[in-house]
Amino acid sequence: MLAPEGQLATVAIGDVVTEAGEVIADTRIAYRRWGALQGDPNGVNNVILVEHALTGDSDAADWWSEAIGPGKALDTDEWCVICTNALGSCYGSTGPASEHPDGGVWGSRFPAITIRDMVHAEHAFLDRLGIGRVHAVIGGSMGGARTLEWTLLYPEQADYALVLAVSARASAWQIGIQTAQITSITQDPAWQGGDYHGTGQSPDAGLAAARRIAHLTYRGELEIDERFGTSAQTGENPLGPFRQDDQRFAVQSYLEHQGKKLTERFDAACYVTLTEALNRHDIGRGRGGLNKALASSTVPTMIVGVDTDILYPYHQQEHISRNLGNLLAMSKLSSPVGHDAFLVEARQMDRILRNFIKLTHEIPPAREIASRYGDYAI
Amino acid sequence: MLAPEGQLATVAIGDVVTEAGEVIADTRIAYRRWGALQGDPNGVNNVILVEHALTGDSDAADWWSEAIGPGKALDTDEWCVICTNALGSCYGSTGPASEHPDGGVWGSRFPAITIRDMVHAEHAFLDRLGIGRVHAVIGGSMGGARTLEWTLLYPEQADYALVLAVSARASAWQIGIQTAQITSITQDPAWQGGDYHGTGQSPDAGLAAARRIAHLTYRGELEIDERFGTSAQTGENPLGPFRQDDQRFAVQSYLEHQGKKLTERFDAACYVTLTEALNRHDIGRGRGGLNKALASSTVPTMIVGVDTDILYPYHQQEHISRNLGNLLAMSKLSSPVGHDAFLVEARQMDRILRNFIKLTHEIPPAREIASRYGDYAI
Repeated sequence: MLAPEGQLATVAIGDVVTEAGEVIADTRIAYRRWGALQGDPNGVNNVILVEHALTGDSDAADWWSEAIGPGKALDTDEWCVICTNALGSCYGSTGPASEHPDGGVWGSRFPAITIRDMVHAEHAFLDRLGIGRVHAVIGGSMGGARTLEWTLLYPEQADYALVLAVSARASAWQIGIQTAQITSITQDPAWQGGDYHGTGQSPDAGLAAARRIAHLTYRGELEIDERFGTSAQTGENPLGPFRQDDQRFAVQSYLEHQGKKLTERFDAACYVTLTEALNRHDIGRGRGGLNKALASSTVPTMIVGVDTDILYPYHQQEHISRNLGNLLAMSKLSSPVGHDAFLVEARQMDRILRNFIKLTHEIPPAREIASRYGDYAI
Repeated sequence: MLAPEGQLATVAIGDVVTEAGEVIADTRIAYRRWGALQGDPNGVNNVILVEHALTGDSDAADWWSEAIGPGKALDTDEWCVICTNALGSCYGSTGPASEHPDGGVWGSRFPAITIRDMVHAEHAFLDRLGIGRVHAVIGGSMGGARTLEWTLLYPEQADYALVLAVSARASAWQIGIQTAQITSITQDPAWQGGDYHGTGQSPDAGLAAARRIAHLTYRGELEIDERFGTSAQTGENPLGPFRQDDQRFAVQSYLEHQGKKLTERFDAACYVTLTEALNRHDIGRGRGGLNKALASSTVPTMIVGVDTDILYPYHQQEHISRNLGNLLAMSKLSSPVGHDAFLVEARQMDRILRNFIKLTHEIPPAREIASRYGDYAI
């Protein structure tokens, strides 16, 4: 019933109604799976749900290759790892670049979505697969936001959670820098109000500019400076008598490469949609505020941050850990790399993931505590 | 001979030859002055040169109103405070928006300049005023870069220096984020290759976008979040069914206001020119590298940074202080405000400035040590 090991597959989940009340008809969620499902799909089992970041896809064994696989921290000989592509993305799940049931591409007809909408869609996806409960949900950055929402939207269906490099809500600074990225896309003349698909034009310049800004929030200034400093790009002179776009510092060339790479693999409208979802990330909304929402959490949750993260500074993870109703553990990645450390500091992440798995064996999930002690304990 | 107290005046300094060999003909430097010059203009005197930041002007008694004036830390009853407008700016000094001697506006004919070019121009300006030596040079951010260059280009003519919130060279991250700002201006169709003056169009949209990004590097995320969090702008709903540019979070409105305000007072080409000068900031260039340049410094210099500065992180000021040949003192501003703390944390800056002035009375300048002990001591 599950997709073949590591193969992309798609599950139709019907209509999704967004938090703001719009309908996304005939939604599909793409996913990949590694390892065999063991145990009761609606009870104790070995499913680990991995949530990707903003421009990620369902191929977690690729982008987290040092974490997922036989013998690795998320050992696919032991665990059934499932990774979906988020609602609104462009790697198989329904998003603004997908075909609309009435014809053409969704484009500007695709509504604004929230992190909660993504989680509801993923929940519906698991339901279609007959999976009613998972051992753990794990994710960083936008994946961490989804993981946090999982613990609050479906606490009975996630036994444990590991939340990496994210905050309990968007900060004003994040909204500011993310809006700068959205604006750089929507002010590209090729944007055409979001309906550029099929016109032969696409806002690649705007998307590349957005990515260049974003990349500077993903990578710590220490790491970028160690690599490039003020070096000139080979064969170019950035110190000439006039400023010229083709006479660059090495870091400019690097950032332009990052921007261009993204335009070759990602859709601008999806980038806007997912970035807007991050702007709207707020686990306190409709739950009596941030700290009340955190305090209400029953799922044993481990929180991880990066000491040099400027996008989701470590104090934001400390804030979550102080207020969380069921804190499993807290860890800090120490790295010059900044936000992306959870993706690239393989040695430290290996320790953290193994520690998390170990804790999930040692500490009973919330519902077992509840059944032993009654509601009092939670 | 000096301009009347607080009045804008302009001094012609002739041709400036840039570091890359271009000539800026008929250059003028604008300035303001507060307090009477006392002492020997070419010897011991009471002149304090204040250097403004990127989009600042010569009206230091306005933008640093709590620091400069009678009875204040930079007491104009005691000191003659002089503040020039930087070469390349648009507040009276020659820059790309100024008239070209051959007619029209400089526009794209204005060459790339460096921090050193600004300091050479300022030195020529003082020379025209008959001032051959100053008690101190003080500046933050781009003004701090100029202050550092003063201590290396004209060590015999600056007795003391106070360098705030800057680094010894541009970091790769700074070059990246500053280039994002330059690009947002030069990719505005109204830019017209830098020759938009007199066309009835100007790249205001690009300049505003640049400022919105820049502002997020000037203001700490703690301060911005304390003020705005995820609040909606009054009367707007940023959580509606579709993303709309006119339904904003409060922080978006705030940043748009910051961007718009700058377009009303600053020229886009000057912004590009000064930002490019910051990209080229490197006191090690042609001096055997960064640490050799710092070690060669003889001017007693105080270094100040801000604990939450993401644009010029505090470790960059620590780096200067570790390597500086003649460190006078080191201070840290503690503030949620980030980089701009040196402009807005008035109480802490008052302490720092008074401490600096006191130290300049207690510690002899480098040339006095040299004359007493010979070259050995320096």
